[in-house]
Amino acid sequence: MHGIIKLFSGTGCPALAEEVSRYLGVPPSGRDIVQFPNENIFVRLHESIRGQDVFLVQTTSSPVNRNIMELLIFLDALRRASPDRITVVVPYLAYGRSDRKDQPRVPITARLVADLISVAGADRYIMLDLHADQIQGFFSIPGDVLTVFPILSDYFRDKGLGETVVVSADLGFAKKARNLAAELGLPLALVEKRRVTMDTEALTLVGDVEGHNVIIADEEVDTGGTIANAVNIAREHGAREVYLCFAHAVFSRPAVERLRGLSVKEIVTTNSIPIPLEKQLPNLTILSVADLLGEVILRVHEGRSVGEVFRSYKRYE
Amino acid sequence: MHGIIKLFSGTGCPALAEEVSRYLGVPPSGRDIVQFPNENIFVRLHESIRGQDVFLVQTTSSPVNRNIMELLIFLDALRRASPDRITVVVPYLAYGRSDRKDQPRVPITARLVADLISVAGADRYIMLDLHADQIQGFFSIPGDVLTVFPILSDYFRDKGLGETVVVSADLGFAKKARNLAAELGLPLALVEKRRVTMDTEALTLVGDVEGHNVIIADEEVDTGGTIANAVNIAREHGAREVYLCFAHAVFSRPAVERLRGLSVKEIVTTNSIPIPLEKQLPNLTILSVADLLGEVILRVHEGRSVGEVFRSYKRYE
Amino acid sequence: MHGIIKLFSGTGCPALAEEVSRYLGVPPSGRDIVQFPNENIFVRLHESIRGQDVFLVQTTSSPVNRNIMELLIFLDALRRASPDRITVVVPYLAYGRSDRKDQPRVPITARLVADLISVAGADRYIMLDLHADQIQGFFSIPGDVLTVFPILSDYFRDKGLGETVVVSADLGFAKKARNLAAELGLPLALVEKRRVTMDTEALTLVGDVEGHNVIIADEEVDTGGTIANAVNIAREHGAREVYLCFAHAVFSRPAVERLRGLSVKEIVTTNSIPIPLEKQLPNLTILSVADLLGEVILRVHEGRSVGEVFRSYKRYE
Amino acid sequence: MHGIIKLFSGTGCPALAEEVSRYLGVPPSGRDIVQFPNENIFVRLHESIRGQDVFLVQTTSSPVNRNIMELLIFLDALRRASPDRITVVVPYLAYGRSDRKDQPRVPITARLVADLISVAGADRYIMLDLHADQIQGFFSIPGDVLTVFPILSDYFRDKGLGETVVVSADLGFAKKARNLAAELGLPLALVEKRRVTMDTEALTLVGDVEGHNVIIADEEVDTGGTIANAVNIAREHGAREVYLCFAHAVFSRPAVERLRGLSVKEIVTTNSIPIPLEKQLPNLTILSVADLLGEVILRVHEGRSVGEVFRSYKRYE
Amino acid sequence: MHGIIKLFSGTGCPALAEEVSRYLGVPPSGRDIVQFPNENIFVRLHESIRGQDVFLVQTTSSPVNRNIMELLIFLDALRRASPDRITVVVPYLAYGRSDRKDQPRVPITARLVADLISVAGADRYIMLDLHADQIQGFFSIPGDVLTVFPILSDYFRDKGLGETVVVSADLGFAKKARNLAAELGLPLALVEKRRVTMDTEALTLVGDVEGHNVIIADEEVDTGGTIANAVNIAREHGAREVYLCFAHAVFSRPAVERLRGLSVKEIVTTNSIPIPLEKQLPNLTILSVADLLGEVILRVHEGRSVGEVFRSYKRYE
Amino acid sequence: MHGIIKLFSGTGCPALAEEVSRYLGVPPSGRDIVQFPNENIFVRLHESIRGQDVFLVQTTSSPVNRNIMELLIFLDALRRASPDRITVVVPYLAYGRSDRKDQPRVPITARLVADLISVAGADRYIMLDLHADQIQGFFSIPGDVLTVFPILSDYFRDKGLGETVVVSADLGFAKKARNLAAELGLPLALVEKRRVTMDTEALTLVGDVEGHNVIIADEEVDTGGTIANAVNIAREHGAREVYLCFAHAVFSRPAVERLRGLSVKEIVTTNSIPIPLEKQLPNLTILSVADLLGEVILRVHEGRSVGEVFRSYKRYE
Repeated sequence: MHGIIKLFSGTGCPALAEEVSRYLGVPPSGRDIVQFPNENIFVRLHESIRGQDVFLVQTTSSPVNRNIMELLIFLDALRRASPDRITVVVPYLAYGRSDRKDQPRVPITARLVADLISVAGADRYIMLDLHADQIQGFFSIPGDVLTVFPILSDYFRDKGLGETVVVSADLGFAKKARNLAAELGLPLALVEKRRVTMDTEALTLVGDVEGHNVIIADEEVDTGGTIANAVNIAREHGAREVYLCFAHAVFSRPAVERLRGLSVKEIVTTNSIPIPLEKQLPNLTILSVADLLGEVILRVHEGRSVGEVFRSYKRYE
Repeated sequence: MHGIIKLFSGTGCPALAEEVSRYLGVPPSGRDIVQFPNENIFVRLHESIRGQDVFLVQTTSSPVNRNIMELLIFLDALRRASPDRITVVVPYLAYGRSDRKDQPRVPITARLVADLISVAGADRYIMLDLHADQIQGFFSIPGDVLTVFPILSDYFRDKGLGETVVVSADLGFAKKARNLAAELGLPLALVEKRRVTMDTEALTLVGDVEGHNVIIADEEVDTGGTIANAVNIAREHGAREVYLCFAHAVFSRPAVERLRGLSVKEIVTTNSIPIPLEKQLPNLTILSVADLLGEVILRVHEGRSVGEVFRSYKRYE
Repeated sequence: MHGIIKLFSGTGCPALAEEVSRYLGVPPSGRDIVQFPNENIFVRLHESIRGQDVFLVQTTSSPVNRNIMELLIFLDALRRASPDRITVVVPYLAYGRSDRKDQPRVPITARLVADLISVAGADRYIMLDLHADQIQGFFSIPGDVLTVFPILSDYFRDKGLGETVVVSADLGFAKKARNLAAELGLPLALVEKRRVTMDTEALTLVGDVEGHNVIIADEEVDTGGTIANAVNIAREHGAREVYLCFAHAVFSRPAVERLRGLSVKEIVTTNSIPIPLEKQLPNLTILSVADLLGEVILRVHEGRSVGEVFRSYKRYE
Repeated sequence: MHGIIKLFSGTGCPALAEEVSRYLGVPPSGRDIVQFPNENIFVRLHESIRGQDVFLVQTTSSPVNRNIMELLIFLDALRRASPDRITVVVPYLAYGRSDRKDQPRVPITARLVADLISVAGADRYIMLDLHADQIQGFFSIPGDVLTVFPILSDYFRDKGLGETVVVSADLGFAKKARNLAAELGLPLALVEKRRVTMDTEALTLVGDVEGHNVIIADEEVDTGGTIANAVNIAREHGAREVYLCFAHAVFSRPAVERLRGLSVKEIVTTNSIPIPLEKQLPNLTILSVADLLGEVILRVHEGRSVGEVFRSYKRYE
Repeated sequence: MHGIIKLFSGTGCPALAEEVSRYLGVPPSGRDIVQFPNENIFVRLHESIRGQDVFLVQTTSSPVNRNIMELLIFLDALRRASPDRITVVVPYLAYGRSDRKDQPRVPITARLVADLISVAGADRYIMLDLHADQIQGFFSIPGDVLTVFPILSDYFRDKGLGETVVVSADLGFAKKARNLAAELGLPLALVEKRRVTMDTEALTLVGDVEGHNVIIADEEVDTGGTIANAVNIAREHGAREVYLCFAHAVFSRPAVERLRGLSVKEIVTTNSIPIPLEKQLPNLTILSVADLLGEVILRVHEGRSVGEVFRSYKRYE
Repeated sequence: MHGIIKLFSGTGCPALAEEVSRYLGVPPSGRDIVQFPNENIFVRLHESIRGQDVFLVQTTSSPVNRNIMELLIFLDALRRASPDRITVVVPYLAYGRSDRKDQPRVPITARLVADLISVAGADRYIMLDLHADQIQGFFSIPGDVLTVFPILSDYFRDKGLGETVVVSADLGFAKKARNLAAELGLPLALVEKRRVTMDTEALTLVGDVEGHNVIIADEEVDTGGTIANAVNIAREHGAREVYLCFAHAVFSRPAVERLRGLSVKEIVTTNSIPIPLEKQLPNLTILSVADLLGEVILRVHEGRSVGEVFRSYKRYE
């Protein structure tokens, strides 16, 4: 209906794109991506895409700003080559936390990024677990936001954890933590953070973890401060074995050092962001999102329902 | 800089507009709003607004769809009369809950409404406590989203409540409930709702209220089901006196009947939505948002900082 | 070329949509349309429409503003589900009379509605007999405006009326009345209305009806005042049997009472607007527009000429 | 509020622009308009207009397409010079008759022209008597459409014509003819044209002119065919002295020859289109629209009501 | 993929369109193009184009402004007839020299024209040798800019000219002249023009032509002044036989007179602009661009690479 | 007219912004620019800018992609703070060389960047010497492109160089080199580069430099390859003292090493790009563009002519 699938990959997450390519049975289309000595990025497509159904896999994790610019320039090159449709597949969307004005005179960068992606030429998007679901509404183009938590909850269910409590590491993650808890049939507790002065903050654990294992869950781990706090307060309240569970392994400095220092049984996340070998701790489990992305790309291409992929994952509200 | 203030009012909240007018010392500009027998709404301005700084106060509470259409038609009439700038002042924005696709093949109506307001001619907006702060990002025009919770917390602080816990009636309100609790120096608890089957749901109170007064807080009260559940579970867990606190009194049927049946000490809300006399229960306290809106209109007009209005309300994150 | 036809229907004219569905041999696609207690309208599609050729039948007759909002929200839901193309089929477009600024500081609501429909996501439109043909130009999307008058004139031709004059009930309908008269081979007369003071107006019949039957024609009957005046003045000038003929039966209060009080032989109109049983007078004839809409939908889908449908209806200017 | 008035004139109607300039007491700003040997039009402004309130007077009468292109190019030059606001003043808008699709597969050129004017950079427009009032709605920018008929009716009232009938030369002009008749307190008649075969048409005079003077009125005189027909049929029905009255003297070939051959007492029109000397018949009276345009420009600049200019001209509907 | 090819032709270059039609084996679709006595252009398509892949061949050479307006109106008619895609094929784009602000307060008309073509409804464009390659970037729609110089260089190569120098008639053509020279394996010289006073200018030949044949090359010949200067200065510096080579034969007055007066061996150009018989000097060779346009139209329609057409023409930078 | 000047500076060129601030006598407005550990850039303005005339000085030299993102995010923060107008002042615009599709399937990144700047919220721009003047036409917002060459030519004129030839280092710079030569009253020569195979290229000096000093001029020096070639070929052809002259010192690796190895008398450029101390060779002269930018900002703010600044710099074409 939209020609054949043409799968392109930026430089942001080549291994994941390769996996998606294998799922689809569609080899990645050739392209040059050059960064000239003056730092200007240049993209050239190796083959005609006129009238075809193009999917561009490019994440916006580190190097963040370079990856965003590459994404936009890639879109411009695609757009000018007259495909039938361009879908950007962004496993991790940067700037998601800048999604509202919570103080005067600041940007809403997530909306800006949505506009940049539109103006550069994308017709649709596929993304994974945004910082806030509302960011979908920032885009004027249609798209699909998928969640990787069914992959994560399947993993934990298969382990069979015994008496366990799901702990939301942040109040803003409360609803998604509840969904994870409900999926696993476990109770919920939450870490509440309250700023006391400009420099000090007080933490409270709302709910009960005494004598239970805990799965501390969050959207992403950035510098690791929030998750480390959650581990510590859970321990103080008598938690037994501690598991970490999050969608995106941003792992900004000093996340890995912090995680290494925590006494946790297992850290479970996904490959939505490439994790370099030196950041792969021994207790780190990385689940792949490639089949999920591949299946959704296929369904988008064939005009079949994307919602069915998630049919088994119940809604709890 | 933008001519003089011209203050217009739709039919949605005339009393509030009148109060704002008194705060500003600016009489409302004359206009006809007629609904013809064929239900078509017609707006005619009585005076020239060329080159002036227009503020249109119109809420989108019940009758919701009629009020939205009136707002859009009013904007069209204003726009064609060549003012320098049009700011819509919407004390309550309808459709705020439809702010994301949480299932396949549904609209994001809040984004749609934002686009409709833009295309009809608004240059800026002023709104109060949106269902999600991210809805700001749905607008391509700039604007100010204000919070009425400082007004509500000032009221409770002045009362001096003794041993009290702030209870968030919904996990989605967790962060704002935390802010209210922090402002009042009180602990936080949360009601967790979990759908069990299509028709049944399980409620849990996360945190401890035993022997304490509680302030059950939420963004709005619609049919009253959520807040009634919260009151009941708080009582079951040994709460003493119960106070309700919410920004917007939507009061859809059967909210008033439900509230009447609850044994609560006081219900504290604002006049962001007009509350007809027959819905004003004896224990209902309505705080006015008129001075807040008036002050912000003045500052927007004069090019002064709006953020300063909230300077005393600390940020807790 | 655009996938298969997916036919959706709003709540505005379900019976007509059903008839169109039968003509096409395409069952209506499932959808939920819910109005929550807080009056917010919610639309959910039952099946995937990715890549398909969607037609949404929704009129904007009473309840006018609710129907418009439902139309816009339905479009948003459709748009976000990534169809190949969305065509709105609006048998009656409200706000058509607000098509120009005939006094200072009023809206052009018909243009506004056209913009709202575009921004909500329609790619094309199909409509019937607009208040002014120029309203086509208000839309930036392409579309087809069809006329039901060939259906009406066929009906009268089949009756064989004898000596008859077509009377335009309003000067603004003069050209279309001329077309009807020419199609039937009859002479034309016109009712001229002139405002004398703010509250009184003078009516004149320009042309001659003495001793003839008359077909009094107009675009629509709203409150029935114009058509009642036309009947009275025709009678005063010696008209014999009186027939009424109009495209849209808006029938706002007190139209039905007025029509009941008039001594007219037959009232001929269409089902572009659903006419509830209690408004169906004994002398009312309702001709269906379903085959016309169905045929045009089919031709639009198949990329065949829509103009040919009207080839037999000559142009008179 | 928008800086000072800067008045520019295209080459379309220099004499009228000069008159407007005198009314305003504002000398026209210097500019070069060159047409190079390759027919490319070039515009250069002589002075800075940064931050000023610019009015560009340019008509789109003959040479039509060249004048439109000059208007657009002039707008581009103005826009890039960073004024505060640009208002185009177009005394005669070409392509007004192409205002709807009255047959399949034709353009709506009036809408196109409205879009071109917007995209080239105009912020507002001032125009005179459009072919259809609805053309206002084609513009997405706000503006004022003025009518010159008060100037024309004042002229006829001052003459004191005795027993006279206003005859609408075309059914599409029926309402405006009625307004003129009402303003002068005269009865109305109409010429009905009906196409019989591809090449022949039948004319009818609806209404009575026997023994009366007639003012045959229309929006514009193009080739003069319609007006000549109207004169002839009025004569056949016993009209005495014949006056012609129309807003725009398009005077395409062979209009002047036709008018010369008609036995009419006086032809009354305006200078909205420049009428070269060789087309000025002895019985032609040209009334100036310069004061009207000048007064409206002044009011737009000063932010005063434009509607008041027309307050004395009553509305008849 | 986009339906079948529908080939339309404006009145600007009918013979070229005819040649393209023969190459494609697709007869031109029927259309009326009428210019009414009031100079308004009217376009009507003879057949349905719903869902088809439309190509409109219309040049913008003399009559320039009329041809541009015809192009825009034609696009509007096409757009409203709901084709799948519209590609404008403009062999010569007027206003190319107005591509930057080289002095204050002038337009960038080439950008304006690009915007006009977009807003009128084109989805893509195909053009030949723009005045500056950067003009591609003025369009927000994608497109293909082709060069005819491979056709011209093939012609010269086949002639076998002996010792020859390519002379760029203008510094702005330096790079393209270098490409031509490289393609032919010849050295390069350039004519430098320098304004001395407002009315006088000095010419210099940079490089050496003594005793060699010269091919004086430029983008286009307008009035012929630049090319005549180049011939004269080449002669002064001892050039032997002189050939002229340019893409577009604008031939504004007095180009033909000037060319006739020059002692040049052969003038080689293309039919991108129709050259009337009276302008076809005996030493004029016209190469056809029809096969190039036809082949590219075919490839665009079939979604095949356009770049391959030029693969044999090497890049020199 | 637009409030008072508010001058903001990004992190791209703080010293230049400081100089501009001094020229204007306007202190830079306070702002935080933070790059979080996750590389997300955050901007916060210290003071209200409602209704003011904002100028943001931010260059897009190295780190190029980060600086562009910072520029866009800064614009978003400014835009949402409701100023009257935002002018971006970009002394060096990156990606200027990607200004056309000179091969299939590549982007036009300069157009993309222009669109990004628009969509992020800029109302106007001020820039210096673009790679191609046509890039002005890529912007849909108005702006001023200034040239620094008058500053450079004044410097050389004051030196009094004796017998000198201006050599254009690249054919694409031919016209601007001619302007410089004309301003200084010197002859012109050009370096022609021709690719021979994929890896080898041939250089030719067109024109004569034997026994003369040369000023080798170009838009910018990136890696220094082009300019080094020009120096070498000029030396081979007998040039005596060599001066380099260019607007933008991009100085990508290994530019400085190359320049150090060349035997040139003096390298003259500007501070449009910050040149770190370690790149400042002993023979490097840096002329400031601060007064030029400051003066133009002042004139833009006050609505005075910008063209006058360049009045003394004659035009040569």
